Amino acid sequence: MPLSEFGLIERYFRHCGVTREDVRLGVGDDAALLECPPGQHLVAAMDTLVDGVHFPHGAPPASIGYRALAVNLSDLAAMGARAAWALLALTLPEADEAWLSQFTAGFARLARLHRVALVGGDTTRGPLSVTVQVLGHVSGPAMLRSGGRPGHALFVSGTPGDAAAGLALEQGRWPESQGAQYLRERFLFPTPRMELGERLREYASACIDVSDGLLGDAGKLAAASGCGAQIAYADLPLSEPLVRVAGAERAHELALTGGDDYELCFSVGPGQLESLLAKMPPQRWGYTRIGTLREAPGTEVVRDGVAVKLAHSGYDHFSEPA
Amino acid sequence: MPLSEFGLIERYFRHCGVTREDVRLGVGDDAALLECPPGQHLVAAMDTLVDGVHFPHGAPPASIGYRALAVNLSDLAAMGARAAWALLALTLPEADEAWLSQFTAGFARLARLHRVALVGGDTTRGPLSVTVQVLGHVSGPAMLRSGGRPGHALFVSGTPGDAAAGLALEQGRWPESQGAQYLRERFLFPTPRMELGERLREYASACIDVSDGLLGDAGKLAAASGCGAQIAYADLPLSEPLVRVAGAERAHELALTGGDDYELCFSVGPGQLESLLAKMPPQRWGYTRIGTLREAPGTEVVRDGVAVKLAHSGYDHFSEPA
Repeated sequence: MPLSEFGLIERYFRHCGVTREDVRLGVGDDAALLECPPGQHLVAAMDTLVDGVHFPHGAPPASIGYRALAVNLSDLAAMGARAAWALLALTLPEADEAWLSQFTAGFARLARLHRVALVGGDTTRGPLSVTVQVLGHVSGPAMLRSGGRPGHALFVSGTPGDAAAGLALEQGRWPESQGAQYLRERFLFPTPRMELGERLREYASACIDVSDGLLGDAGKLAAASGCGAQIAYADLPLSEPLVRVAGAERAHELALTGGDDYELCFSVGPGQLESLLAKMPPQRWGYTRIGTLREAPGTEVVRDGVAVKLAHSGYDHFSEPA
Repeated sequence: MPLSEFGLIERYFRHCGVTREDVRLGVGDDAALLECPPGQHLVAAMDTLVDGVHFPHGAPPASIGYRALAVNLSDLAAMGARAAWALLALTLPEADEAWLSQFTAGFARLARLHRVALVGGDTTRGPLSVTVQVLGHVSGPAMLRSGGRPGHALFVSGTPGDAAAGLALEQGRWPESQGAQYLRERFLFPTPRMELGERLREYASACIDVSDGLLGDAGKLAAASGCGAQIAYADLPLSEPLVRVAGAERAHELALTGGDDYELCFSVGPGQLESLLAKMPPQRWGYTRIGTLREAPGTEVVRDGVAVKLAHSGYDHFSEPA
């Protein structure tokens, strides 16, 4: 027997996420009532995941719930913000309770980790799609995309390309092999770099989250900063499983142009560089220098002293062929 | 030539809505940066409109853009809040510029009226669906659904049922006749009762926005308030066009169970009643007393001294047959 919309909300969403003292009224009325901490900016992001576009049809519901929150948290991480509240708009073909239970478990797992309260939203019937809106706070200046300058060092967190390989494996486009499971997990359950983002506010001149491919997103940071970027092919941080599964050549390409990484790409000016490296050791915090911002516009990847051409520079929902 | 996602956002969304001083950073970075007024609560609502579910396939894009914002503003009105910022997640099968231009014009028309700034969002490719998230503020206590008590008078704004009739006309389920255009407009461009909601905070004990049918939504208000409701059939406010097009019998039924009204249903305690009627005359503010909250649970409609039975009590996305 299908649950009514009201029943669904009651059963699955009322207690999904943590309880927070700054939530005066959460799920269940016409709107949520929230208390903003004085003296901080409110930070707001919203992203949609569509069935068959942002995840393969039939993807594990726990991963869909987790990722719907993760991609938004990652936007907050890129600003150096701390997350507080989320709203969830879930469009479902039918009220499948097993699906919902796993979906909310995935969402709740990440919500608990980052102390996010689910305070409202909407459930509707239609083609499967999830929109999450996340609200958070930043005290002091946020990191923007636009603060980079020529000469600033360019970094990326984690090992980009893993998620794109994981997606290829999930879709059965690549054969199974050792390391495949690791890559799959990187696609299904990416890690929004919340703590790194918050700490980087002290050091980074600009930051962006890498969702559409490192090359494209580094290019957006550079363009917003009024400069270009040079990336050293040899310095790209590649995971062992990625190189094992994809081979070195394809691994580099995926690290540059694969999507869904949800890592942070950031620039650091000369005045902050030494202190960043000392206070937040790259090995411990998991980030790598990949290049430098420069005057000349555009993004260039240099391999053995020569600029390389790449087939495409990142994922764009509307300009790629269907 | 299709626009890229970035181009779409730039062209259509960057300047959609008003410019506000409390927006430190709007569309274009990873997240928006907003300044909450001190001493007020933040109010957050989010609603989705799905093609073929919440509007007929092929509906005018201006209406879709307008309604996507209106249904959210209506949630804020029900809390007595003032709107400030919106985020828009738009999923589109293809980047149709003519469609987008009309859609954003409809959204912007209502955004300007209520001084709402569009500060962020997402465009994705997939089956047509629009999620809008609205943020606003309320100074002092918000109106909740739960403040009503037995004996409190029950009111509704506007003339419910018009939008449901307008939808039937839009879908070609009803023949054209005089008054049809008025009803259509009520469906396509509903009026969120922002000023009424803000002013009612002084008088109302409880409030809900009527989106799923008056009977069902009045029942939700009553249930949240721990009581029941009695509605006088003869007191339902019906518009002339509705009675002309639908006939008196069907007009009453639509006023009770039709959806998409986006009116406010509210209760007022005896201590506030006189002052409400004096300070906010019903004729001028466009609201009508329709009944009373009572001890006995459930919602009853009384006609000529007898409780009437109704086929269904409001729209529910998951429990109605597809």
